[in-house]
Amino acid sequence: MTGAEGTLGIITEATLRLHGQPEAVGSGVCSFGELRGAVESVIELMQSGAPVARIEFLDEVQVRACNAYSKLTLPEQPTLFIEFHGTQASVTEQFERAGEIVRSHAATRFDWASDEQRRAQLWRARHSAYFAALALRPGCECVVADVCVPISGLAECVAATRREIDAAGLIAPIVGHVGDGNFHVLFLLQPGAADERARMERVYGAMIAHAHRLDGTCTGEHGIGLGKRDELVAEFGEPAVALMRRLKEAWDPHDILNPGKVFHTT
Amino acid sequence: MTGAEGTLGIITEATLRLHGQPEAVGSGVCSFGELRGAVESVIELMQSGAPVARIEFLDEVQVRACNAYSKLTLPEQPTLFIEFHGTQASVTEQFERAGEIVRSHAATRFDWASDEQRRAQLWRARHSAYFAALALRPGCECVVADVCVPISGLAECVAATRREIDAAGLIAPIVGHVGDGNFHVLFLLQPGAADERARMERVYGAMIAHAHRLDGTCTGEHGIGLGKRDELVAEFGEPAVALMRRLKEAWDPHDILNPGKVFHTT
Repeated sequence: MTGAEGTLGIITEATLRLHGQPEAVGSGVCSFGELRGAVESVIELMQSGAPVARIEFLDEVQVRACNAYSKLTLPEQPTLFIEFHGTQASVTEQFERAGEIVRSHAATRFDWASDEQRRAQLWRARHSAYFAALALRPGCECVVADVCVPISGLAECVAATRREIDAAGLIAPIVGHVGDGNFHVLFLLQPGAADERARMERVYGAMIAHAHRLDGTCTGEHGIGLGKRDELVAEFGEPAVALMRRLKEAWDPHDILNPGKVFHTT
Repeated sequence: MTGAEGTLGIITEATLRLHGQPEAVGSGVCSFGELRGAVESVIELMQSGAPVARIEFLDEVQVRACNAYSKLTLPEQPTLFIEFHGTQASVTEQFERAGEIVRSHAATRFDWASDEQRRAQLWRARHSAYFAALALRPGCECVVADVCVPISGLAECVAATRREIDAAGLIAPIVGHVGDGNFHVLFLLQPGAADERARMERVYGAMIAHAHRLDGTCTGEHGIGLGKRDELVAEFGEPAVALMRRLKEAWDPHDILNPGKVFHTT
């Protein structure tokens, strides 16, 4: 059912596993001169077994957008937002260690937001990233692209995508759930500008091709839907998609559950 | 694929996500006058968000078997083996908190095995539980039963099962992966003694009925295989199993993948 995008059933009942609120929460913001330092910091944090609760990446364009929109003064550089949960002692210890790791990857700044107000301000800025991006180019619409790669290929994929965006003359910040190797490009497009849309589609296609080359996937969390049905075939091959189609027929012989999504029905 | 027991495919390639060795590991052993205290301690530990790496339950019969087999002198009472992973500071902190929790549930003893040798000795004893059980009744064979219930029903399910075992005059220690609500009964049976086997089957059937009554499942980790195909129908109903059969036909139209397992093929 997971990943079937509603094509195999509907939820009629859900049992939730609840987790307690963490006793202590600490957030940090860390800036880097280069994208690679940010991504390598994430890899080392994950490999060290640090119990990272959230780790989010904003590229320099997105930081500029967030500074303007949320009235912050962060350095306009590749940036990580990091959060740890645990006891007060373990959160303090994790931040000390994270500081060592990010400094070893040439972080230019590492601020730990120990008070609740500053922490809330930072995460509100992260959560407003979409609106901050929209405000970068007033009147535009935003197409949010989504791919995911093994974290070892993340720096290469993000850097290649940034080069394509800039070469195409588009305005598009990048944000990423970097712990998962997942990132988004927020393409800002003039409504009705067919040429811009065509350039966006070329860049998005190249971004998916980079992800595939790096053993990644064409969608990290947004799904296949209607728009990526061909990319699904590119990723898994026609025989695998034919099997998905047979499973769909077994579950839903009358094709009433979200028909036409994920793959073309024959 | 997960849970299909090889009926839908074979693994031809696997990508592993590796986790680092923990920096510090600490194990504890905790004895209780009553089963309920042990289970309630587990529930409170889980609800407190403690990063428990392993938590294993042995009932008084299994502890007696382990004492004899592994030359230990644990109190012959319901017992928890607990392990925490983390930094040295967080492991120490977790054990202090676990101590408070188990004492509030009337633990009679809580030993923290801080040195590696004692820790290895205790876990070797836990890993030898099957052989220790066999040694309780030399010459016997062992049938390992497996059910799983929501942790809120675990104490009731284990206690009811212990009463059925004793009333049937069988020798059968109980061990449990209690963090998951999963436990095993190790039935020790004289080879060829049909009457003993019949009593075991009655007790095992009652144990599964208890698990179903408590919203649990007839198998926590051993699977359906051939032996629990009827229990699968009891648990999910005939329409759900008919759907499983249709999915099997879609994947494997020639019925060559582990045929006959999980459900009766028509």
